[in-house]
Amino acid sequence: MKGGVEFVRLRLTVAYDGSGYAGWQVQKKDVTVQQRLEEALRKLFAGVKRVHGSSRTDTGVHAMGMVAHVDIARAELKMDERKLLLAVNAFLPGDIRVSEVRRAKADFHARFDAKGKQYRYMIWNHPAMNPLLRDRAWHVPVPLDVDRMQRAAKLFVGRKDFKSFATTREYEMESTVRRVTACKVYARGSELTVVMEGEGFLYKMCRGIVGTLVRVGERKLTQREIREIFRLRDRRVAGMNAPACGLCLWRVVY
Amino acid sequence: MKGGVEFVRLRLTVAYDGSGYAGWQVQKKDVTVQQRLEEALRKLFAGVKRVHGSSRTDTGVHAMGMVAHVDIARAELKMDERKLLLAVNAFLPGDIRVSEVRRAKADFHARFDAKGKQYRYMIWNHPAMNPLLRDRAWHVPVPLDVDRMQRAAKLFVGRKDFKSFATTREYEMESTVRRVTACKVYARGSELTVVMEGEGFLYKMCRGIVGTLVRVGERKLTQREIREIFRLRDRRVAGMNAPACGLCLWRVVY
Repeated sequence: MKGGVEFVRLRLTVAYDGSGYAGWQVQKKDVTVQQRLEEALRKLFAGVKRVHGSSRTDTGVHAMGMVAHVDIARAELKMDERKLLLAVNAFLPGDIRVSEVRRAKADFHARFDAKGKQYRYMIWNHPAMNPLLRDRAWHVPVPLDVDRMQRAAKLFVGRKDFKSFATTREYEMESTVRRVTACKVYARGSELTVVMEGEGFLYKMCRGIVGTLVRVGERKLTQREIREIFRLRDRRVAGMNAPACGLCLWRVVY
Repeated sequence: MKGGVEFVRLRLTVAYDGSGYAGWQVQKKDVTVQQRLEEALRKLFAGVKRVHGSSRTDTGVHAMGMVAHVDIARAELKMDERKLLLAVNAFLPGDIRVSEVRRAKADFHARFDAKGKQYRYMIWNHPAMNPLLRDRAWHVPVPLDVDRMQRAAKLFVGRKDFKSFATTREYEMESTVRRVTACKVYARGSELTVVMEGEGFLYKMCRGIVGTLVRVGERKLTQREIREIFRLRDRRVAGMNAPACGLCLWRVVY
């Protein structure tokens, strides 16, 4: 109950091609995914205020399993979840789709209740880019030593200080320690996928890890040097940030 | 030797996102992949005439392994294959890439020497489309019975008359008998892939087969009815053509 109105909290799973958006979070100037989703929901339920997402993805980053919650006035909610899914998608542009709608408990919070996240990063490792993946993968034309990358990926697993791999945001005074539960590199022909799972990730941390792993694959960094980079706690010593287009928020665990 | 000029025949493997093209073959009005490839090659080798492709893909159809051949005057060819790959890609738009360049025998012909082709067709089977596959897959929102499709796919294997599954072109007086060596349906979550291999395919035959298999998956066609459709040799009795965007020429075998 808020101001006498009874609300139903819905949990949405959202997929999007991030190429055309300035990330998830609503901004003053540029178009974002959160904005488009709120606009679509307001066409169905005039009273919709804020859609709360589990994560703030950057400009150009994609999602298959972003989770968000939203409150709908019970008096306005006349559809079941299946119809709601079709209705909201009818008002969304083709590069954003709600893939699941579920009723959630009144206190469910997409961001604060998240227990873990999985990100996947795609690399196309061939002298010529795959034109069917040009907004979906990072093109690395030089040969990568996948075995080396797979071994080095294990160094990112555990409860560690990831300061050297993340971009500091001025207003972030919090700890840079995070627990990563999986970091694996899979190869299928020229397509490499880095799967990263953890309780939470710092700003641009996934892209910092992948950029560093690619340096390892190019034989420009050793495992010993990665341990040293962790120790130095300095973003400048690690590899570049891998470009946004290869990153996808794959799923959120509650 | 043609008119006193000595030529080197090159074999190119070409990948493209077909969304922006009126198919492979050069046309009077619309932009095609063959045209863009010839333009790029002419920027490197002024004497380039025709690029001959193994197949004519339709508007919106993609390729990972289209094969083409082209003759370059030996006097003009000053690069090795590796540099040539980078050079031609530098002149191509991002939705077309040459993925391999090889020297071929003087009598190699991309079309006439092809012994077989593999096409892959992608379906996204979920109430909501996957926005990352919106130009790459056919969205089928109703549930498909994949087991039924897998069993029915076997009916398309063998040397058969595919008249009921292909679109007749007026000028085609040739036989409608083709030998299909494999037709399989793979499922990975909501993503279904139909892999079709054969010595050759009639016009729109792959899309006719997939459209029919989807009718089977919807339980609107039985195996017995497919046998009857084969027998009738009438395009109107089979399923609709699956849309072009899901189809990809995967590889050509020589």
